[in-house]
Amino acid sequence: MSFNPVELTTRKRDGEKLSAEEISWFITEYTNGTIPDYQMSAMLMAIYFQGMSTAETAAMTDVMLHSGSVLNLRDIDKPKIDKHSTGGIGDKTSIILVPLLACFDIAVPMIAGRGLGHTGGTIDKLEAIPGFQAELGEPRFKELLGTIGAALISQGKGLCPADKKLYGLRDVSGTVPAIPLIVSSIMSKKLAEDIDGLVLDVKFGSGAFMKTVKEAKALAKAMVSTGKHAGRHVVAVLTDMSQPLGRAVGNANEINECVEFLRRGPQDPAIDKRLYDCTMSLAVEMLILGRRQMGKRLKPKDAKKELEEMLLSGRPYSKFLEMVSLQGGDTVALDSGLPVAKVKKTLKAKKAGYIRAMDAQAIGMVVVDLGGGRKAASDSIDHSVGLEFERFIGDHLQKGEDIVKIYANSETVARSALEQLQEVIVVSPQKKSAPKLVRERIV
Amino acid sequence: MSFNPVELTTRKRDGEKLSAEEISWFITEYTNGTIPDYQMSAMLMAIYFQGMSTAETAAMTDVMLHSGSVLNLRDIDKPKIDKHSTGGIGDKTSIILVPLLACFDIAVPMIAGRGLGHTGGTIDKLEAIPGFQAELGEPRFKELLGTIGAALISQGKGLCPADKKLYGLRDVSGTVPAIPLIVSSIMSKKLAEDIDGLVLDVKFGSGAFMKTVKEAKALAKAMVSTGKHAGRHVVAVLTDMSQPLGRAVGNANEINECVEFLRRGPQDPAIDKRLYDCTMSLAVEMLILGRRQMGKRLKPKDAKKELEEMLLSGRPYSKFLEMVSLQGGDTVALDSGLPVAKVKKTLKAKKAGYIRAMDAQAIGMVVVDLGGGRKAASDSIDHSVGLEFERFIGDHLQKGEDIVKIYANSETVARSALEQLQEVIVVSPQKKSAPKLVRERIV
Repeated sequence: MSFNPVELTTRKRDGEKLSAEEISWFITEYTNGTIPDYQMSAMLMAIYFQGMSTAETAAMTDVMLHSGSVLNLRDIDKPKIDKHSTGGIGDKTSIILVPLLACFDIAVPMIAGRGLGHTGGTIDKLEAIPGFQAELGEPRFKELLGTIGAALISQGKGLCPADKKLYGLRDVSGTVPAIPLIVSSIMSKKLAEDIDGLVLDVKFGSGAFMKTVKEAKALAKAMVSTGKHAGRHVVAVLTDMSQPLGRAVGNANEINECVEFLRRGPQDPAIDKRLYDCTMSLAVEMLILGRRQMGKRLKPKDAKKELEEMLLSGRPYSKFLEMVSLQGGDTVALDSGLPVAKVKKTLKAKKAGYIRAMDAQAIGMVVVDLGGGRKAASDSIDHSVGLEFERFIGDHLQKGEDIVKIYANSETVARSALEQLQEVIVVSPQKKSAPKLVRERIV
Repeated sequence: MSFNPVELTTRKRDGEKLSAEEISWFITEYTNGTIPDYQMSAMLMAIYFQGMSTAETAAMTDVMLHSGSVLNLRDIDKPKIDKHSTGGIGDKTSIILVPLLACFDIAVPMIAGRGLGHTGGTIDKLEAIPGFQAELGEPRFKELLGTIGAALISQGKGLCPADKKLYGLRDVSGTVPAIPLIVSSIMSKKLAEDIDGLVLDVKFGSGAFMKTVKEAKALAKAMVSTGKHAGRHVVAVLTDMSQPLGRAVGNANEINECVEFLRRGPQDPAIDKRLYDCTMSLAVEMLILGRRQMGKRLKPKDAKKELEEMLLSGRPYSKFLEMVSLQGGDTVALDSGLPVAKVKKTLKAKKAGYIRAMDAQAIGMVVVDLGGGRKAASDSIDHSVGLEFERFIGDHLQKGEDIVKIYANSETVARSALEQLQEVIVVSPQKKSAPKLVRERIV
């Protein structure tokens, strides 16, 4: 079937709904190069303004999903549950969740990304481990999922080429924040993993893509609907990203924090409470979905209990070491703590008061400036640099108390980071309570 | 100065106003090829949804106007007043107005267009006169304006290249109907003519670009504001285009109708009343603007009287012949009536009743199908074909009475035209009054 691209754009512009055939044709012809960029970017802007219905978003997701190769995990006789986060600062939950859930015989076929801009990338963090290999290829990925149930790899070239092309165009045409476009981009990649269920961590706040709860909720609802439309179990959790998640922001130091988490287990005062709560909320949802896939009902309270017992057993850390080792990583280096950069500076409170707010996005950019992130996709990363937070929003500070440590590889860069951090962490005499971490659950 | 195209698009998308410098930069870099089509089409769609303020539209018009060569008519010691119509079916007023106003020592530096789609073009109509030369070049155009005060030419390549490039992109990206884009496209070309004043004929109804009075009024207001912003006297008249303007629709036959108009003068029953009223309304505005430029005030009533006396004098027809002759046209052929196509068919009333409505755009497309218009810019035109209307909306018909004559060059094409016309002219027993021609005047 063939359509007229200008007519379809005009109809979308005028608020009409497009049929699945029309959407499929438009995306396919664009991916093939028949529809030029300038027609697609006008269509994307029209979608930004007019939105898309659930059926339209599902059709868009479906055509993007089938634009390339799709994983086939039918041979793996385990529930296949993944997690996706919309991205934040210091967000390292994937690295903990994969080995933790694998201990319950749940395969987490996680294909993760690299960082760009203020948001870090799970793959970059893992590559702080000497020797770690994120590009496994599909056969080896499936082998690891089938045996140890855990593997963490980067997206191969064959997956969702339509999304790659579209994302590139959205980035240069001011159409990144359109909800149906975000949904189809995320969901097509996740559905291409051949999963049974998906837990979405939709973040809101200064370090998140969605600044408000309202926007995050709209995105979460659209993703859950699209997932259900595709016949998958999908749950979304709205979590706060008004400050870094956990103490470490960087790469090597975030891995060290994950190791501490897995090694020390629950109720250990050295583990950041917010990182623990966020990880456990997502783990609970994943475990419930996994059991559901096996025909079993599990209450959240019981799921949490099982997860805590598992952490206390130490098995998740062993599983993590096993996974890292099978992906070529140096477990001795990992276990003894990855080295961090030598030049250290500490931001101290200039006056007594409460931490009222942080600009988490700006904090992410401080890490980029230290060399721990990317401004352009081709930039290389210094895994040793980063930040270590001692205090968070709502904490009371005496004058001179430590707020955050900087690990840098030059005196000048460290000083510049110190100045920037001074600007973006607000201390005032007024009391302020810590922001609630998990705001809402969308099913 | 340099800006970030994505940031500017994002700000427009979010409803912010852009500065004159930002707009100027965006359009200039696009015209130069530095900003690619896909960024411009996203910006155009954002403008479609968010609109532009008067200052923004004026800035856009200004940069488009200065993207190419601009006429310099300072040496011509006459008021320079032009007219522009937003386009319709059977709209031939320009051909009458240019010689008529020239008789009052007003220069009308009219650079007219060719037809595309349902709308005919003034230049195509004039080229029905054997030998008529529309591409004069600037020196000869200025010479004619300075001496006889009348010349009608087609747009040269150097004028408003930004508009040409932008118009092409709007056409393929679904962004043609955005008011600021229409305004800047029209006004940049008109201001490049170095005029003192401009009368706009903004049409509404089934044959017009703007289907409703409301849309036409919004466009008229935006054009008047932009013209004033550029320091010109601009008046807009909203006129009905729910049916053809005048009896003839085509090329040669439209020229014949103009000749009749100029030769017979006012109050002649052979001249279509609506064509007469429309032309005179525009002529009154042009004469008032011309006098104003010479520091004289003229009342509309007095202007009309002067114009009618002038038509009675026969001088406007002489002026027309003079102009055609100096532009290489065969005045003997013109004066004896240009030949029309040989195959004639007449649409007759199938039943008694009133003409309630016509689809004027479809009537325009009937002429295109006869060969009298263009589907693509490269199509050639058969000047001899066309339609001749005997009756209009509100007229009562007896069964079998003539409604419209078809001039075609083949029996098959004529029959097909007859069938199409049957569909688009609605006759019903209910009484219907003729639509008011001039709806409103916007200053």
